[in-house]
Amino acid sequence: MNDVIYVTGGARSGKSSFALKKALGYPGRAFLATAEPFDDEMVDRIGKHRLERGDSFVTYEEPVNIDTVIASMPSSVDVVLVDCLTVWAGNLMHRDDSDRAIFRAVDRLLEVLQAPPCTVILVSNEVGMGIVPENAMARRFRDIAGMINQKVAAVATEAYLLCSGLPVCLKKRDQ
Amino acid sequence: MNDVIYVTGGARSGKSSFALKKALGYPGRAFLATAEPFDDEMVDRIGKHRLERGDSFVTYEEPVNIDTVIASMPSSVDVVLVDCLTVWAGNLMHRDDSDRAIFRAVDRLLEVLQAPPCTVILVSNEVGMGIVPENAMARRFRDIAGMINQKVAAVATEAYLLCSGLPVCLKKRDQ
Amino acid sequence: MNDVIYVTGGARSGKSSFALKKALGYPGRAFLATAEPFDDEMVDRIGKHRLERGDSFVTYEEPVNIDTVIASMPSSVDVVLVDCLTVWAGNLMHRDDSDRAIFRAVDRLLEVLQAPPCTVILVSNEVGMGIVPENAMARRFRDIAGMINQKVAAVATEAYLLCSGLPVCLKKRDQ
Repeated sequence: MNDVIYVTGGARSGKSSFALKKALGYPGRAFLATAEPFDDEMVDRIGKHRLERGDSFVTYEEPVNIDTVIASMPSSVDVVLVDCLTVWAGNLMHRDDSDRAIFRAVDRLLEVLQAPPCTVILVSNEVGMGIVPENAMARRFRDIAGMINQKVAAVATEAYLLCSGLPVCLKKRDQ
Repeated sequence: MNDVIYVTGGARSGKSSFALKKALGYPGRAFLATAEPFDDEMVDRIGKHRLERGDSFVTYEEPVNIDTVIASMPSSVDVVLVDCLTVWAGNLMHRDDSDRAIFRAVDRLLEVLQAPPCTVILVSNEVGMGIVPENAMARRFRDIAGMINQKVAAVATEAYLLCSGLPVCLKKRDQ
Repeated sequence: MNDVIYVTGGARSGKSSFALKKALGYPGRAFLATAEPFDDEMVDRIGKHRLERGDSFVTYEEPVNIDTVIASMPSSVDVVLVDCLTVWAGNLMHRDDSDRAIFRAVDRLLEVLQAPPCTVILVSNEVGMGIVPENAMARRFRDIAGMINQKVAAVATEAYLLCSGLPVCLKKRDQ
């Protein structure tokens, strides 16, 4: 079976760079961006990430239906790097905020990850280690992002927590 | 001596489920809830946790004097799962916010944990890995919760950090 | 070559105490404080830290040019404990908030850490594991602090993440 590699960490923890290095070990590479450039800061962040990975990846942009994009990767692709699940969580909430719709989308992703057509590397974020947010929507976002992280990490064959650019291995294929 | 097992992690990191699984390894089980259902969201969260653990635990509810409840567990109880220390920290601050009162309560808990009548599993939260809160009370809460975590982890025989549902072992009995 | 030991963790995670214990293993000790006592809370925090380390350290106070202070440690000093990089990041932003000035200061530090005159222990903070801050300056601070953490951890010979007072080793000299 193809590997599912889960990479998490805080903001600026080096998770995207670590995932990128992992992906460079495969010959045919795709990048699946979940972020939508809705403001200047976002445009800037997306641009920096694009610069970092160069043109050695075929880029896909899909804010919501990432399961479909992963499932239909052409056979020339050996690895697809999905960056990131936390932005995807926000996109799902923005489209249809019901538990039902969100859980369905997550279930569809998990189904594809059971037998993916190539190696899948998924980047996510740790957002639950600060003070409880005062804002109810932020608390709900934290719950949903955390639930997605748990479910994806559970089906991953490898998992890493990045901290100051250094990886802590959470799970290995042989374990 | 009975084990003292410390389980920490961010919001929705899987810490309560991990602690629950640990507790299911013991025949006689008690659950000590520190949360008080002061609003609808809290009622909902408490209900979900109760559903997850089913009726195989005798439930105790005590927001403040958890030392007394742990110390007086009947001999039929092999493990008590305390969930969680961070809510307890908030309850202590709400009752009497003086350092003196809080330190005394923590000392009483530590004393019981030196020679507990059964295995004790304590769930806590990581709340100090975000940006410094603007609000002075939140900063004080973060300090107190962190101090409690350090003191309890220091006397624990085992300790784990949960991250995306996966445990990082911080401390083992044999170490 | 002299060791460069990087110690990170959340607020009240025990990172300063861990670093202090490491430093006590060396005979000639210096402490480089980056914090400036700009309000009462800060005065109080600085005082508590000073009390904890006693008078067995020669204290230096330098909010910005920490590279120069480290580089010019007298030969009687075997270890200098720098506490902390996150406050230093804030001080840099406060002086000259341009990327150019900040990157230069970081480069100067990294240069000194390539061949330091004594063992250097650097304490930092994890600030990126909460919800994205609403405030743009806080987001920028998080980016800069995270970037500094990655760069310093990359040149360190040892690195630790503290969690509830317990260390997770991120990197060892022999690795």
